[in-house]
Amino acid sequence: MVSMLRFEVLNEDGSSRTGILSLARGCIHTPAFMPVGTNATVKAMSPDELKEIGAEIILGNTYHLYLRPGHGIIRAVGGLHRFMNWDLPILTDSGGFQVYSLSALRVIEENGVHFRSHVDGSMHFIGPAEAMEIQRALGSDIAMVFDDCTPYPATYEYALDSLKRTLKWARMCREFRNEGQALFGIVQGSTYRELRTMSIEGLLGIGFDGYAVGGLSVGEPKEVMHEMIRFTGPLLPADKPRYLMGIGDFTDVLVAVESGVDMFDCVMPTRNARNGTLFTSTGRISIKRTEYKADKGPLDPNCKCSTCTHYSRAYLRHLFLTREILSMRLNTMHNLYFYMDFFRKMRDAIASGKFSEFRKRWEAVLASRPETEEEIS
Amino acid sequence: MVSMLRFEVLNEDGSSRTGILSLARGCIHTPAFMPVGTNATVKAMSPDELKEIGAEIILGNTYHLYLRPGHGIIRAVGGLHRFMNWDLPILTDSGGFQVYSLSALRVIEENGVHFRSHVDGSMHFIGPAEAMEIQRALGSDIAMVFDDCTPYPATYEYALDSLKRTLKWARMCREFRNEGQALFGIVQGSTYRELRTMSIEGLLGIGFDGYAVGGLSVGEPKEVMHEMIRFTGPLLPADKPRYLMGIGDFTDVLVAVESGVDMFDCVMPTRNARNGTLFTSTGRISIKRTEYKADKGPLDPNCKCSTCTHYSRAYLRHLFLTREILSMRLNTMHNLYFYMDFFRKMRDAIASGKFSEFRKRWEAVLASRPETEEEIS
Repeated sequence: MVSMLRFEVLNEDGSSRTGILSLARGCIHTPAFMPVGTNATVKAMSPDELKEIGAEIILGNTYHLYLRPGHGIIRAVGGLHRFMNWDLPILTDSGGFQVYSLSALRVIEENGVHFRSHVDGSMHFIGPAEAMEIQRALGSDIAMVFDDCTPYPATYEYALDSLKRTLKWARMCREFRNEGQALFGIVQGSTYRELRTMSIEGLLGIGFDGYAVGGLSVGEPKEVMHEMIRFTGPLLPADKPRYLMGIGDFTDVLVAVESGVDMFDCVMPTRNARNGTLFTSTGRISIKRTEYKADKGPLDPNCKCSTCTHYSRAYLRHLFLTREILSMRLNTMHNLYFYMDFFRKMRDAIASGKFSEFRKRWEAVLASRPETEEEIS
Repeated sequence: MVSMLRFEVLNEDGSSRTGILSLARGCIHTPAFMPVGTNATVKAMSPDELKEIGAEIILGNTYHLYLRPGHGIIRAVGGLHRFMNWDLPILTDSGGFQVYSLSALRVIEENGVHFRSHVDGSMHFIGPAEAMEIQRALGSDIAMVFDDCTPYPATYEYALDSLKRTLKWARMCREFRNEGQALFGIVQGSTYRELRTMSIEGLLGIGFDGYAVGGLSVGEPKEVMHEMIRFTGPLLPADKPRYLMGIGDFTDVLVAVESGVDMFDCVMPTRNARNGTLFTSTGRISIKRTEYKADKGPLDPNCKCSTCTHYSRAYLRHLFLTREILSMRLNTMHNLYFYMDFFRKMRDAIASGKFSEFRKRWEAVLASRPETEEEIS
């Protein structure tokens, strides 16, 4: 079968690298950040705004779209791209992680998982066959295999058992692979190096268009997460895209890119925006702080996003405190632009062999202004 | 004092008329609809989007902006236009109606009203002097006099007393008039023709740049409201803009335009949009209806707004049921476009002497699809 995806590494700087991922619907410059569009919309944003800030691919959630509106409806109206008016690439996760993290009940069986919907309590079943069928109906450009996300902590035996299940399901997903859709495998193995290695070897034996690291950011300490990223990243094949699932903290991204990771998704910029936490070139701020009450200045004088170009901190604070919809729009626009810009600058740094300077500069900024609870006047 | 406003009647068709209202920041084609921007934002919309749909003036609420963020802050950051990034005209109401309708407690005195904030329960005082000072700080293009909104029903004696208070306050507002800001008087008088006449005569004696009809849509039957509009409209001076405050039902607008009214504001398009009630060329619909579940068609095939151009009813239904922010954006965009388009077509009809056909056609549409409670699947 011909791969629907081409990946070319352009520059290398240590283990970090830039590349171009080519799909029928468009090219993606890596390292890439994928805004999360859970319910067929990146919360508060329009497709035009996403393009304006340079998004080249977004993520859709199989679990959510299966429950609402249902993949049958999305197929009936012409697929996810047409449904949400987004004509660039879409990656869909498989639902494995949401079944683990969102459903009220989860009963794992041989060929999938019975779970209770977090929306209305109804019972459902998704396994590799179902996950591939749903993703076919959605018509995403990149599909993910249905995996069993191993909880943390897990004993070696449990993690091994879970890992074998993920590998078996990965093989089934590969069999049910959809025409015209790239398919990525997912590495599990909890925090055991040996199991991570075994997982990668298993996946390589099956063969995928790209490889994702799953089962992290599930409660393990940061150092353990970083150790696993540093260990796993370089073991993934260099000629395929590497994707670290669901992780978007700047510190984690820097560790991962240094370990050769190419793709990221995370709700951090969008969720934080709605909560009034905004990223700036001097660290993160809480827009509700009293000090911004009559502050005429832009959120971040170094930012060129439309929020920073047109609005003051005083206005953003006012919109946040009055719970206006425009608050979520302007904050999301800024935070997502900030992320896209961070990735753009990171790609430039790698291309010019300056990733380690880039990393040090950012780590200093990130350390300078830790998040604190702020008083509202 | 030189008026900050020029008004020219362009076409007449019976008592209905088209005109151009010229202010330093821009011209307004009348009959005009003013989207309501209560908290220094038209809910869910950006200023660019408002311009895209043809809004030439918006309304700001003195009461809300006085409470949050406070007019001192808006003055400090350069006025309301700069604060909210809107460079076309703004009309501010005086707070009189909100003090009446929103505050938990209202104690009317000689020179104003003590009231309890609906936000935090704190006590405040606004009278004609304060209302003019706040509107000066906001820097709106058109200010309104601070009036005493007469409740319905009111005895003749109460309405007379209230009317006299409004006239006295109107005189004070005229004295405190701000440089560079047009000022409109407000007609009160409850449902008594004699008092409406007395109110108009009193206001004409003081002299304003425009005249508004207040104290309607406060609980009186529709027929009584229409009777008052028909009676009051033609008594207002023909060479000044006439503004019917807070009323935007299509039926009421048609009655008012037929009575020579030029300006309108109402939360109907925006509030209904957020509740999923959408206006179409064949009547209003509730987007949550089961029948739209897999409906690929646009909300209104005859509408050229960006929502109808890019999205299906199935998608709009899905966004509404998942309570997505984009739902409120797309619905508001459509409803406001629909209003602006209705007014555009109404102006064309008047200009070509066909207002009564226009009115009949619309009344038939409005009667064809009354709102009903719909079941959600």
